[in-house]
Amino acid sequence: MNNNKNYVKEITNIEDDFAQWYTDIVIKAGLADYVDIKGFMAIRPYGFAIWENIQKYANEEFKKVGVKNLYLPLLIPEDLLNKEKDHIEGFAPEVAWVTHGGNQELENRLCIRPTSETMFSTLYAKWIESWRDLPMIYNQWCSVVRWEKETKPFLRSREFLWQEGHTVHETAKEAQDLTLKMLNIYKRIIERELAIPVLQGEKSVTEKFAGAENTYTVETLMHDGKALQAGTSHYFGQNFSKPFDIKFMNRNGKEEYVYQTSWGISTRLIGAVIMAHGDNRGLKLPPKIAPIQAIIVPIILSDNTVVEKAEKLFKILKKKFRVEIDQRDNYQVGYKYNDWEMKGVPVRIEIGPRDIINNQCIFVERDTGNKIVVKLDDVESKLKETLNNIQKRMFDDCKKNMEDRTSSVDNLDDFIEKINKKQGYIKAMWCGDEKCEAEIKDKTGAKSRCIPFKQEKISDKCVVCGKKAKHLVFWGRQY
Amino acid sequence: MNNNKNYVKEITNIEDDFAQWYTDIVIKAGLADYVDIKGFMAIRPYGFAIWENIQKYANEEFKKVGVKNLYLPLLIPEDLLNKEKDHIEGFAPEVAWVTHGGNQELENRLCIRPTSETMFSTLYAKWIESWRDLPMIYNQWCSVVRWEKETKPFLRSREFLWQEGHTVHETAKEAQDLTLKMLNIYKRIIERELAIPVLQGEKSVTEKFAGAENTYTVETLMHDGKALQAGTSHYFGQNFSKPFDIKFMNRNGKEEYVYQTSWGISTRLIGAVIMAHGDNRGLKLPPKIAPIQAIIVPIILSDNTVVEKAEKLFKILKKKFRVEIDQRDNYQVGYKYNDWEMKGVPVRIEIGPRDIINNQCIFVERDTGNKIVVKLDDVESKLKETLNNIQKRMFDDCKKNMEDRTSSVDNLDDFIEKINKKQGYIKAMWCGDEKCEAEIKDKTGAKSRCIPFKQEKISDKCVVCGKKAKHLVFWGRQY
Repeated sequence: MNNNKNYVKEITNIEDDFAQWYTDIVIKAGLADYVDIKGFMAIRPYGFAIWENIQKYANEEFKKVGVKNLYLPLLIPEDLLNKEKDHIEGFAPEVAWVTHGGNQELENRLCIRPTSETMFSTLYAKWIESWRDLPMIYNQWCSVVRWEKETKPFLRSREFLWQEGHTVHETAKEAQDLTLKMLNIYKRIIERELAIPVLQGEKSVTEKFAGAENTYTVETLMHDGKALQAGTSHYFGQNFSKPFDIKFMNRNGKEEYVYQTSWGISTRLIGAVIMAHGDNRGLKLPPKIAPIQAIIVPIILSDNTVVEKAEKLFKILKKKFRVEIDQRDNYQVGYKYNDWEMKGVPVRIEIGPRDIINNQCIFVERDTGNKIVVKLDDVESKLKETLNNIQKRMFDDCKKNMEDRTSSVDNLDDFIEKINKKQGYIKAMWCGDEKCEAEIKDKTGAKSRCIPFKQEKISDKCVVCGKKAKHLVFWGRQY
Repeated sequence: MNNNKNYVKEITNIEDDFAQWYTDIVIKAGLADYVDIKGFMAIRPYGFAIWENIQKYANEEFKKVGVKNLYLPLLIPEDLLNKEKDHIEGFAPEVAWVTHGGNQELENRLCIRPTSETMFSTLYAKWIESWRDLPMIYNQWCSVVRWEKETKPFLRSREFLWQEGHTVHETAKEAQDLTLKMLNIYKRIIERELAIPVLQGEKSVTEKFAGAENTYTVETLMHDGKALQAGTSHYFGQNFSKPFDIKFMNRNGKEEYVYQTSWGISTRLIGAVIMAHGDNRGLKLPPKIAPIQAIIVPIILSDNTVVEKAEKLFKILKKKFRVEIDQRDNYQVGYKYNDWEMKGVPVRIEIGPRDIINNQCIFVERDTGNKIVVKLDDVESKLKETLNNIQKRMFDDCKKNMEDRTSSVDNLDDFIEKINKKQGYIKAMWCGDEKCEAEIKDKTGAKSRCIPFKQEKISDKCVVCGKKAKHLVFWGRQY
């Protein structure tokens, strides 16, 4: 049993040092590893399988709204990136430049895409002639590079994986509707699959995407009360179609510039899952995206009957669930329990000699630690039920954390007191002036997370300047 | 009907100028498009859907042999690339270099991965301790960049999509077995899904991968008789594990270097499909990978009964097949027929007023042009049958082309005559000397495609020098 204690000790206590706890989980659960280039990471199979599960669900949701996948070049010529003023200002300081191909210096340097609005726009200008060609609702799954200064695996890395959807429409309304439709899909993915409740709203002008007319966001709150932007959807209006000359013949036979959107979620979501659900035992994965939903641990490997029963159980369950069996003979059972808990597997299935006599096995729930005696004949239906319960409970727990950590304030002193005490979301009224937004950031470290779709009226006055308030805003310190 | 003729005219005749015909198909069928960077391309949704179908099947096959997907960094430090001597010699002239991140010059430049042996090896050295950690059978789907001089969409582009599998084993035998197992998976994918027969064998020393002990290949023959390398699988022995210091504790408690393999197929396969099957009507897609397996064309759009029946058919068929309905009102039926033929859709389903009276529709097969009258009640089973027939027939036709274009020769004059007359594969004996291989390339333009697994004895003597022959070799001019 010494093994167990040692193992658990290796993870930093979550309340003592959340940042170190996070890194411990990333490395020790085998999600990702560092490489010899700052800010880059290797996503290991266990981490990548989570991403594949997210991809699968996203592709299904995307398909329902007519999204088609494609693939555009990794590299973007400098003059293309420069075409939209705000866009280049936002991205130029953080792109990686390719200057040589083979032994030759390039005439014009190329950047590795930090995002692909410019490449999509160039091609849309070629591909679109009339309203009959519209809408184009295209998406690519790819990696992007942004030369960030501060990096952290999954949360902010110089290379990350994402999907970037880019669409073109006949009318502003159709484009705006699509922007919100995609935001709702993100909400569904994050709430239903990742079991993390989201806050939906619009970003302030300061926080919106470089080149966008409006940026909408799904915001999440982590275990420590810090906020994480989990996905964004942008309405561009004609901001790109004008410099990129994307015109179409409209239904009245007149030339018009198209209306565009873009939207993305990334491997950052894996970071969100770690930080929203994890605890001192390690990672805690929602069943819907867990690479392994249940791990079967035969308690005594030297007992043939036990091993046979366990293997039979494995064969039955693997038809319907992502299940594995742990037959490692160089670890004790206690070590294995801790190991799979640390890896966040939702259900552990223990089976030993006494269980076989009683024609049963034991389910242990990762989130509650509860043990459930299950008759071997009921194992399939019971596993389905248990996984559903865990998925629901994880969402509810996470929601409770969010609610507990949300405060309403009507003056700056309370704002500072609340955020210093429990982080979380601070709800406060805002006049809409960027100066007040900047003052809050200065004094509290909190940025405006979003202007939520569901508005409430806490007071009539801006929490900073006292002038007439325009919006309720959720504020928070962020990852 | 003028439309039709004009449309078909737009594609260059396949016998007159195969290269131009190929480019016409790529662009006009909407598979890919050029961008403003030489050698890069945009893979459009219709082309990308083919790749997604290939990926899906490959992932299923990979899973059966225990392959796990992961994702490693896009960029590789120069000193890492330099560690294996042959490898760097092979790749250095064709990598793209990143020299700046944001506004800063990098201390050590980074290359965009041309392939990831070096990155995998570095990580394997970290991840592997004992024989219990082995085998590791990992794969990534990603894009790679190689700064090729001559480029052609899909066939040879500076950026392409592929999968690269990299595995680590305890013994040479296990690694060698895995190398061949993956080669057999490639054969199955290409023959069963892409309907292209392959030749399997080993590459000569000159043609093998930079750093490999042995390279095995699946070779295909295109419509014009030129050969195309469609996939390769490499056995590395300890060539990478020694410079990268990937050691493990073996079952006898001794430290030993691991044995490695790598294997890949790429979007080049889309080029192979175009060139192996296409004809003067355009692209011809095998049903198993066709993004649209059947296109329903209601003959008269102004006839409500016709449209309703067509839509009903669409609803029924889309449950089991990848099917679309063409209700464009700005094109004549004849134009649509040509358009879908050009796009290579395996089956066209026509339905008009007379068909409805007879409770039928018409299937038109893309490959034969044959029309089949199908009762509406039988449409599901009949479509399944027709698609299966087309898939099989396309493979058989392609196999016949390969056989017709394969010649056996026992002297260089015959070699030259045959290859000038009909391209194709030339079977000839070889002594194993690189000089004779070089002489053949000089005099005929043909390279050794492979030393086939199925050896025959055409003569005792090398076709060049007349010395004792070691192998039967397939030779051919290549893409």
